[in-house]
Amino acid sequence: MSKVVLLTGGVGGAKLALGLEAVLDPADLTSIVNTGDDFVHLGLAISPDIDTLAYTLSGKASVANGWGREDESWAFMATLRELGGEDWFLLGDRDLALHTIRTGALKRGESLSAITARLARALGVRSAIVPMSDHIVSTFVDTDEGPLAFQRYFVERRCAPAVHAIRFEGAAAARPAPAALAALADPSLRAILIAPSNPFLSVDPILAVPGFAKALRAAKAPIVAVSPLVDGKAVKGPTSKLMAELAIAASHASIAAHYDGIIDGLLIDRPDAGAPLSIAFAETDTMMVSAADKARVARAALALADSLA
Amino acid sequence: MSKVVLLTGGVGGAKLALGLEAVLDPADLTSIVNTGDDFVHLGLAISPDIDTLAYTLSGKASVANGWGREDESWAFMATLRELGGEDWFLLGDRDLALHTIRTGALKRGESLSAITARLARALGVRSAIVPMSDHIVSTFVDTDEGPLAFQRYFVERRCAPAVHAIRFEGAAAARPAPAALAALADPSLRAILIAPSNPFLSVDPILAVPGFAKALRAAKAPIVAVSPLVDGKAVKGPTSKLMAELAIAASHASIAAHYDGIIDGLLIDRPDAGAPLSIAFAETDTMMVSAADKARVARAALALADSLA
Repeated sequence: MSKVVLLTGGVGGAKLALGLEAVLDPADLTSIVNTGDDFVHLGLAISPDIDTLAYTLSGKASVANGWGREDESWAFMATLRELGGEDWFLLGDRDLALHTIRTGALKRGESLSAITARLARALGVRSAIVPMSDHIVSTFVDTDEGPLAFQRYFVERRCAPAVHAIRFEGAAAARPAPAALAALADPSLRAILIAPSNPFLSVDPILAVPGFAKALRAAKAPIVAVSPLVDGKAVKGPTSKLMAELAIAASHASIAAHYDGIIDGLLIDRPDAGAPLSIAFAETDTMMVSAADKARVARAALALADSLA
Repeated sequence: MSKVVLLTGGVGGAKLALGLEAVLDPADLTSIVNTGDDFVHLGLAISPDIDTLAYTLSGKASVANGWGREDESWAFMATLRELGGEDWFLLGDRDLALHTIRTGALKRGESLSAITARLARALGVRSAIVPMSDHIVSTFVDTDEGPLAFQRYFVERRCAPAVHAIRFEGAAAARPAPAALAALADPSLRAILIAPSNPFLSVDPILAVPGFAKALRAAKAPIVAVSPLVDGKAVKGPTSKLMAELAIAASHASIAAHYDGIIDGLLIDRPDAGAPLSIAFAETDTMMVSAADKARVARAALALADSLA
């Protein structure tokens, strides 16, 4: 019982993955990554959550930005701007190489899974990164300014429009990536963790692919989510604003309710006053800044899972 | 009679265009550029001769390389190599922005002419740059190693394979770009110049588009070519090697014969011994290094044309 699967989105999930790599044999970890954020920009197939995870696990991520690479230069972007190109989505010179290779490989008919595995290896990632699906699933948010493709909402509009609803186009017809199903069906699976990524924008696209609901129900390993709320707020990104717009109380109980029927336990920073949890839970400081923080949260999530096995 | 049209390919032609901009009002100059070298690489639509001209006329060209930009960085290329991408064709970080904008605009249905005009303006080019055609024409060389697309021969194989024949796929069905025909039909046309570019690889693709033969015959202005041979050799590139492989003597007479029926005069460095020219010609030092050289060759070509008017 050594294998661990992590369902994850962007930055918060990447931090937990890094913690899991520190406390596990990296060969035992498979991260199944949200691809609802994926989009084509300037002709390039961009997979923001896959890339954030791959850059984080290879030690190349820009911690300050929360996206892209640390050792990055911006000559392409500066020239694009000078020549009148679209500049609302920032693409570093080195980051561009990744997107260019992925785009070419997709055009030649390679699966996103195969490409992701190859690029992660080339970057030096030791654990497995698996896109949730090789089919296209696209997150759209219905806002008070009309429907917006995810990156337009998230990057161009910086989450300013109020969100009424979130849709995952293509999800109903998509199948989980074969490696994702294989990881969930592995008889030596110790735990399935849901990262403290945005439940609505980062984890829901994965759960919206019908094959995952089925695979999670069938999985014998305990399923534990790490709450994205610390001190009653999201650490980063639009989770808190979104919960308010969707009229969901910013509490661990809301997170537990959101994952109701899926998770067996929830890891939280501390119980919310007046909102008791009706699910198994454990407490730890879930704020992940240092490597020690990340390892602590990874250990606590695994310990909770082990206690539920 | 103030307007001048230049038929041109790569580096040599760009030097003459720079000389013409120095001795003319740049608004009077239209360069019609070979697009037989154009190709799609890593998903990007690349127009090497257009770009060499645009970078040269905007003062951004790398003189040392003979392609690309002077103020260039190579982070994309270095990362592409690290990640196992195709690295035989070098793309600088800034250069990439140009190709990315062109590729996107072509996909949206803009003509190469319109895109080229817009990008040249954004780069700061003052004269007109017009691709020979908005249709795709692709130069192939038949070599002792089989047929090769132009850039594979020119860049990847560094012109090493011996050439038996040169083909311009798509040329017969292509039409000249409207702005090219308009420039050739301008009633105030003073001269049509053929740049000292490779006659077989850079100028022939233009002449292979049927509309150009007709337009050149109909043009009232004198047509003068600048011989690409200096001291009996090409200044740069595969012209001399190619002429040997095609069993053509490396003489101005061969160049005159090649353009027979098209040109009215030939500008040369000095007559070849034992190979008299049966066409009007003028002599000047045609080696173009300094700005003064380029202006001198431009003036001499125009003077020869004026004498034939």
